[in-house]
Amino acid sequence: MIAYRNLRVALLGAGSVGAQVATLLTEHHDELASRVGAGLDLIGIAVRDVDAPRTAPIDPALFTTDAMGLIESADIVIELMGGIEPARSYILHALNSGADVVTGNKALLAAHGPELQAAAEQVGAQVYYEAAVAGAIPIIRPLRESLAGDRVKRILGIVNGTTNFILDKMDVEGDTFENALAVATELGYAEADPTADIEGYDAAQKAAILARLAFHTEVPVEAVHREGITQITAAQVSQAQKAGYVVKLLAICERITDPASGVDGVSARVYPALIPRRHPLATVHGGKNAVFVEAEAAGDLMFYGAGAGGIETASAVLGDVVSAARRHVAGGPGVAETTHANLTILPIDSVSTRYQITLEVSDAPGVLARIASLFSEHGVSVEAVQQSIASVESGTSESSGTATLVIVTHVASERALSRTVADIADQQVVVRVESVLRVEGA
Amino acid sequence: MIAYRNLRVALLGAGSVGAQVATLLTEHHDELASRVGAGLDLIGIAVRDVDAPRTAPIDPALFTTDAMGLIESADIVIELMGGIEPARSYILHALNSGADVVTGNKALLAAHGPELQAAAEQVGAQVYYEAAVAGAIPIIRPLRESLAGDRVKRILGIVNGTTNFILDKMDVEGDTFENALAVATELGYAEADPTADIEGYDAAQKAAILARLAFHTEVPVEAVHREGITQITAAQVSQAQKAGYVVKLLAICERITDPASGVDGVSARVYPALIPRRHPLATVHGGKNAVFVEAEAAGDLMFYGAGAGGIETASAVLGDVVSAARRHVAGGPGVAETTHANLTILPIDSVSTRYQITLEVSDAPGVLARIASLFSEHGVSVEAVQQSIASVESGTSESSGTATLVIVTHVASERALSRTVADIADQQVVVRVESVLRVEGA
Repeated sequence: MIAYRNLRVALLGAGSVGAQVATLLTEHHDELASRVGAGLDLIGIAVRDVDAPRTAPIDPALFTTDAMGLIESADIVIELMGGIEPARSYILHALNSGADVVTGNKALLAAHGPELQAAAEQVGAQVYYEAAVAGAIPIIRPLRESLAGDRVKRILGIVNGTTNFILDKMDVEGDTFENALAVATELGYAEADPTADIEGYDAAQKAAILARLAFHTEVPVEAVHREGITQITAAQVSQAQKAGYVVKLLAICERITDPASGVDGVSARVYPALIPRRHPLATVHGGKNAVFVEAEAAGDLMFYGAGAGGIETASAVLGDVVSAARRHVAGGPGVAETTHANLTILPIDSVSTRYQITLEVSDAPGVLARIASLFSEHGVSVEAVQQSIASVESGTSESSGTATLVIVTHVASERALSRTVADIADQQVVVRVESVLRVEGA
Repeated sequence: MIAYRNLRVALLGAGSVGAQVATLLTEHHDELASRVGAGLDLIGIAVRDVDAPRTAPIDPALFTTDAMGLIESADIVIELMGGIEPARSYILHALNSGADVVTGNKALLAAHGPELQAAAEQVGAQVYYEAAVAGAIPIIRPLRESLAGDRVKRILGIVNGTTNFILDKMDVEGDTFENALAVATELGYAEADPTADIEGYDAAQKAAILARLAFHTEVPVEAVHREGITQITAAQVSQAQKAGYVVKLLAICERITDPASGVDGVSARVYPALIPRRHPLATVHGGKNAVFVEAEAAGDLMFYGAGAGGIETASAVLGDVVSAARRHVAGGPGVAETTHANLTILPIDSVSTRYQITLEVSDAPGVLARIASLFSEHGVSVEAVQQSIASVESGTSESSGTATLVIVTHVASERALSRTVADIADQQVVVRVESVLRVEGA
């Protein structure tokens, strides 16, 4: 029973996701029509060059370079071009022309999300962006709707497949970072310039989007603390393994209270962290993504699946297109996305978590006691200390060798921890601070 | 900015979930109002006995025995009474009075889902039921909306926490079924009469609901093939462990083609099955639930979390209440849930999967060859055979003992497999067929 006129769908961009979306819209036309209550007609695809060679079997008559003209005759505009401009102008034009917008553009959403939402609200339209975070995994809709009656406490996300592939390879095969990256590049998991992935920029954009949605607060991407994985060594990964942890690059969005000022706020941060092997996120292998959500009432939830890929991401885009189409058929304005809570964005210094500190120290009596007292002076409580086999370095006596101390703390503030580490580094018995890694999900 | 009049919310039932819903609606009133764009006022709670002792701190003035009167003055009715009647009549009355309905009543949805959906569609209202399957885990909304542009191929769900607790305990601690059940009862994971859980009735209701939603086809709960876990022995679990599997009770919904007739259709079934330990579902421990979805475009997705619990399930209910409320504020009819595909429900005989068959056989020459030829005669391809240490039984010569054969097949039809097993059981060299377990997720 199709009671409604067909809806006109415009596609901007014909890359790997766009081509799959075009194919699915065409091949599943009748099925989609019965799910929506109206046909979805792909009326055109805006591209820069209509004659560029394409692998997907798309009707060439659909291609146009007149994006603005295409947008004006559409009910639903799908933006899959990426980048800030002209994507931003096109989306604003679409909203102002009365169309709903579906986009997978995380860079644009992280930078201009509130502007797009405001434009949509003003005209009673809606911007859908399930594909922007964690590819095929439904995470935007669950946060926006399923958990709308709950309070999110924390999100731990493996939201970048490239870095997860690299870290998983280092964990499973004992590879170095450089080797794992080379394989990731060869297999197409990493781009020729992998900076956006391995330095955490991509994950930071997703953290900004997730934090805004979870905490109803505008979170500029610049406010997301960001550390990449380029400093992670094979030795760290193997030591983590022995201690029952795995290293993952996490996007973390958290409601926190600054321990010094007592200010309530939000932390959004990206860094490599140790996760206990029994944690559900530890089982996320290869290029997969997963988002672990801790909510006040619902408890722990995890959403797992493909974080990238043309056809996988196209599934998320199509889901949004169906939602937009159903809203058109049903009538009524879109669901406004509010930032009513407007919480303070707190810096990394306000965060409290657990830490693993690895030190090379003189293998002399009293060293452990000296180190332990430094932790205690700064109010940092130690959970476990492990002293590894001393590595005797060209020494004539036992005491001229060095030992490795691995210390895991209870929850401590970033401030207290960094002061402790600075003091430790100053000690004569400390040869060097090998690494400081945060421990999450414990 | 609250522009809309407050919405009137009625609650039917004040059990563990209902009490938490009432508390959250009251405590989070302002927060919910800013998310919805309208206040949500709890106007009453229908109970059988207003004076019954209650642990939750709920304003006693809210309680009433006049459910029908309460329903008539509500915009949104939350049904958390359970059972078929009077829940069914109340819901129909609510829909006919113009209210949207939120329910967590899986028994009612499995038995009368299509009737309720039809009633809702007729008046332009909507029935929300995220809490009915897998407690706090968002799975209904992802299936109904996120995957609306995709095609679900198969769902493998751990949707019953009691049986997962029992099987996990058997796996981790080597417990017998009886012991594990006793502990589950003691800890409140199992009810005094555990039949609905351990015999798979509860999982079958959820399978019926998931299959209807995933395949747009009416699936009566009676059409769901159902086997419980009471026959699972400690020996089977330990043998599975050695072979790299774990036993889980699965609700499986699958698009299949009957190998004999070529008829395309749907299979919905519940049984204990072996899952490879590297499969994401294998990491679901204790009373947790998870739903693994294989979709044509999206690939593999998994949704993990708490499958039960008052406050956890209340989160799912509240998410639905917010959706219903936003729809009221936005206007327009609900999203009709269609069964337009109307596929044939195929019986268990039409299913094809992999199998593990454990046989006790005479430890004599030629036995393996004889068994292997029987598989081959029925067109069942064998993937692996493992012969365990022979158990010499009061024998005087080696050949009077018995051996255990564990055979894992490639994908075979249920029909061919059961014929093979019947033939094997007839062989003189076969002492007994110890178990036949299906292997899923491989």
